[in-house]
This record gives sequence, structure tokens and C-alpha cells, in this order.
Amino acid sequence: MSADRPVPREDGVATAEPARVPPAGDVILAVDIGGSRMSAGLVTLQGELIDRDQIVVDHDLNADRLFATLMVMLDGQLARAREHHNLRPIAVGVGATGPIAPNCETIAPLNIVSWRNFALRERLSDATMLPVFGDLDAKALALAEGWLGAGQGKESFLAMVISSGVGGGIILNGQLLDGADGNAGHVGHITVEPNGRRCACGARGCLEAEASGLAIEAITGRAITEPTYEIMQRTGRLVGRAVASVCNLLDLDLAVVGGSVALGFGATFFNSAQETLDDHAKLSFSRGARITPARLGDRGPLIGAGAVAIRGVRRARRRPSAA
Amino acid sequence: MSADRPVPREDGVATAEPARVPPAGDVILAVDIGGSRMSAGLVTLQGELIDRDQIVVDHDLNADRLFATLMVMLDGQLARAREHHNLRPIAVGVGATGPIAPNCETIAPLNIVSWRNFALRERLSDATMLPVFGDLDAKALALAEGWLGAGQGKESFLAMVISSGVGGGIILNGQLLDGADGNAGHVGHITVEPNGRRCACGARGCLEAEASGLAIEAITGRAITEPTYEIMQRTGRLVGRAVASVCNLLDLDLAVVGGSVALGFGATFFNSAQETLDDHAKLSFSRGARITPARLGDRGPLIGAGAVAIRGVRRARRRPSAA
Repeated sequence: MSADRPVPREDGVATAEPARVPPAGDVILAVDIGGSRMSAGLVTLQGELIDRDQIVVDHDLNADRLFATLMVMLDGQLARAREHHNLRPIAVGVGATGPIAPNCETIAPLNIVSWRNFALRERLSDATMLPVFGDLDAKALALAEGWLGAGQGKESFLAMVISSGVGGGIILNGQLLDGADGNAGHVGHITVEPNGRRCACGARGCLEAEASGLAIEAITGRAITEPTYEIMQRTGRLVGRAVASVCNLLDLDLAVVGGSVALGFGATFFNSAQETLDDHAKLSFSRGARITPARLGDRGPLIGAGAVAIRGVRRARRRPSAA
Repeated sequence: MSADRPVPREDGVATAEPARVPPAGDVILAVDIGGSRMSAGLVTLQGELIDRDQIVVDHDLNADRLFATLMVMLDGQLARAREHHNLRPIAVGVGATGPIAPNCETIAPLNIVSWRNFALRERLSDATMLPVFGDLDAKALALAEGWLGAGQGKESFLAMVISSGVGGGIILNGQLLDGADGNAGHVGHITVEPNGRRCACGARGCLEAEASGLAIEAITGRAITEPTYEIMQRTGRLVGRAVASVCNLLDLDLAVVGGSVALGFGATFFNSAQETLDDHAKLSFSRGARITPARLGDRGPLIGAGAVAIRGVRRARRRPSAA
């Protein structure tokens, strides 16, 4: 902003007359693709979420129409960035429910039937004229919690989301684990009850089939918001068992757990999980491992999507040919 | 070797009069530290094991005396390298049973009571005057099987050893996973039987407490070399269950399994393991995952120790200050 021509402000953030005042800085358009809800927001390079919006997924729409409703929201956020916040959007970051292909080149969310191998990255890139970087939602959350949340300063930890499903992302020695197709972190499909309930994936006794919101509602016949004490404890025990296996397997000692079910069940859940973890993480390097609530709350997914884009932009600058 | 002065040969390998003929090439002194046996050998930069020796661990010796018996074997191999093979030892590679500190700076093998936090790397370095690089034995095996064995050409796989204990190493996206203290890969401490047998680690129902050689002997009261059909199948099922959890968690689709118990139980074991894996690895990226026998047999541990050193030498050359 020029010093001799003050710009009017509202709510503490610079607003500018477009095309006259240069943007005060860069910002990421962050997008979180969930099975029932999609949200978008503006994330600064410091990880501040300064604007946000969300839509409910209309499962009756075909692939193109659904994308069009997403774009209405994204165009709105891009306009807010430029006109209201006087910031320049430099990239789009996406966190998407899995499975995905690397970089969200295509996505195939289990709960969005019309998007089968939907070419999300290219569609977003064409529509926004910005570089697009994507990853699994739970991996994005792991980046966010490591950056600014409960995993801050930790070189190695597991991030988990327990809501209608169970997802996860793993930071090991400072690196987010990808796996062959970018799907590493699927902690929901560790077997916790041999011969247990049938899982949506087709196997039996997966953590997701026993401890996800959908599973708990099916088991108890009650709304997930009205749990019994017993089911909160049982969910904690099962999560603790899976976390112990991961801590032992990967030599890590922290699980950061978010999601509406885990956070909603609160201390009862976390205490049971910690007790079971204590009973099962007994190796010299896993002893003392902790389960702790995610700290970024409902800002985590969008901050994580922002982190995915910031990582992507930095990598592209280091290897210009790979951009 | 000079062209005008032919060097006498035995068994197809150049032998030379020391100090007259320059060495024909470089070689690694490879060392495998097990709880009951230690072995050493010479591994070329192409991964050929050209000499080897082994000793039984005498558990009555104190730390220094045990190290002295190891050094007798190592000095013998170093002499063989120089005098018999006309090769120059350039580094020592170690694969050691865990837990270890990174690079085997110290080791504390569960079954070698006299070596508690034994400063193996420095002791070996002082005694051999060579750079020493170390890692967990099962991680070394993963490097070997990825280099020249059943994991060749695979970017991501799990290597397992099922013998008296159960160990593992994980290659993910071409990188050997380390974890906070270098102990990643401990697949033996995934819970496979909730409330199962007590494990040496203190937890219950770990894979190692149910499917290791020692566990099987305790369960059946029979020598591990005389298994029933049923126990071979059960061991396979439990291993298949753990492998499925790892494939789902880390987005990989291959487990290379070695060790005397797995290889001794043979097809009965591998068929049961594969069947259980098929039943539990149902995600788009884990479906079709395979369990396959390790291919390097009893050469794997030493070739793996050689690979640890070759990796170490290359890293040190890339970052001279970190050598």
C-alpha cells in the first residue's frame, strides 16, 4: 500500500480498491473435501485462517454439477481474498477424503458416488488458473497439527480423525509418509477385533468398523451425540490398541486425535485410550507414548489444506521443472 | 594388477603378495549381531558375499570379553580380505538385534545380557580403524532384499524375520523407515490377539508372543522343528493379520518374509498367511497384497549389513562434514 494514499479498513484487515493498490501479501485458497460437507477458506503463509465458507454435498448432483457448486464457493473465497483482504491467491491446497491418487490428480471419495476417479486437480487448476496441490484430508491434518497444533516440534507422530469414519496421517522423522499411492496413514483399517464387525472396506474387525461414528451408531442404536459411558470407554480402548500397534511398529510416541467422535467423547474416551496404550506400548522406545486431543479444532482441516499447498509451492520452487 | 606380472590365483579370486600388488577393489566387512550367534563376512560393492565366519555367543562372558571374541572373528575376516581376496576393506556394516540407538552408537540386545547400552560403533571403529555404520538387523535385511532379493525393484515393502523372535523393516517410497530412535519396523509388537499371551516386552497378544519360535515352543511344548500342521497354519494366519494391518496402514502391497520359522514352515505357513492377508487387505491400494519368502536365505543378514555400510559411505561422501 502506498504511504501517501491510506486505504480504508474494516475489521482490522486491509481492504483496497482493486487494481489500484498492490496486494499486501500472498494467501492460499484451502479446500477440504468431505463426504457430507465441503469447506473452503483463506490461509496465510503463517497458517492463519482468515476467511471460510462451507457447503453441504448434494448427493443427487452429477459430477459436473457438484463441481460447479464447489466452484461457486471457491470463486467467492477468491473474490474475498482479492477484494476484502487485499491478498493475492498464489495456490490452491486440497485435503480430500480418500482414497486419492497422488496430489489429488484424481479422487474417489467413498461417500461421493458421483465422483469416481474425478480429475479434481486439473479441474481446479483450469477453473482457478492457479497451481493446485492436494493430499488426503487426514495427512493434511497431520501437517497442520505438526505445524501449529499438538504435534508442534515433534519429528514423529500419528494424527488421527475419528468422526463418521477413521482416518490418519503419519509424520516420521519430519516427513509425511505417503506410501505407494499416497494413501499411507489409513489407521482405520488396522485389525483391532479379530473376526469383528464387517467393515465398509470388506474386511472384518477394522478399527473403523468398531470405533467410527457410523459403527458406533450401528452397534448401539443411539445417536453418536448420546453415547453411553461404556461405549465411550470401549471406543477409547480400541483406539488405544491401534495406536499402540502403530507406536510399536513405527517407533513413535505421540498420537494427536481429532474428529467429532473423539473430541465429543472427551476425557472418558481419552483416558481409556491412554490406559490401553500404556498397557500395549512397552518397548523401550514406545513406553510413555501419549494420546492427546488435536489442538486446531475445526480449523485444522483447512489449515492442513493450506499446508499442503505451501509445501507444494516450496517443492515446485526447488525443482522448477517438476512444477 | 599389473599386466606384466600375473598374480597367482586360487578359487577364482585374485590373491596377491601383500604390499606389492595394489588391491583389486573395495570390500565391506559385514557383521550380524544376533542373540545366540554372531556372524561376519565380506560383501563386495555389488552385494556378493565372498567370505564368512560365525561364532556362538557365550553368555557367560562379560562385555569386554565377548567383544574380544567378536574381534578375533573380525580380524580374521579383515585378514582374509587383504591377503586372500586382495581387496581393501573400506567400512564396517552392522546389522544388530534390537533395540539399538541410531547407527548402533549403542546396542542393548534383549538376549545378550552383558551388552547393556554397549557402545558398539565406537568400539568397532577403534578396533578396526574403519568407519562403522549400523542398523537394526531386520532393517538391514530389508535393504538386502530390496537390493538383490524378493523386494528388488519395489519402492515400498515390508521385510520380516520370523525366527526365535519376530522383527521387521519397512521400505516406503524407496526410503528405509527409521522412526524417532531408529527402531521403526518392529512388526512383532503389533497386537494380533487382544488379551493374548504375555509378550517379552510386557504387553499381551503381540505377534511375537504368539508366532515367534520361542512362543510356538512354549505354546505347543514341541521343538520348533517338529510343528503340527495346525500350528503352522495358525502362525500363518497371525502373520497374515499383522501384515494386512501394515499394508492398510502404510499403503504397501508386499511382505518379504524370512527367518528359520517362516521358511521352515514353508508352503503351509505361506498359504495360510496369504489367505488371511487376502481377507483383511481390501482397500483399493492394499487389495492383492502378497506375502512372499525372502530370497537371499542365510546370506541376507550379512548382505544387509553390507548394504548398511554402503549406504553410510555414500551419505558420508555426499555430506563430508557429517561423516
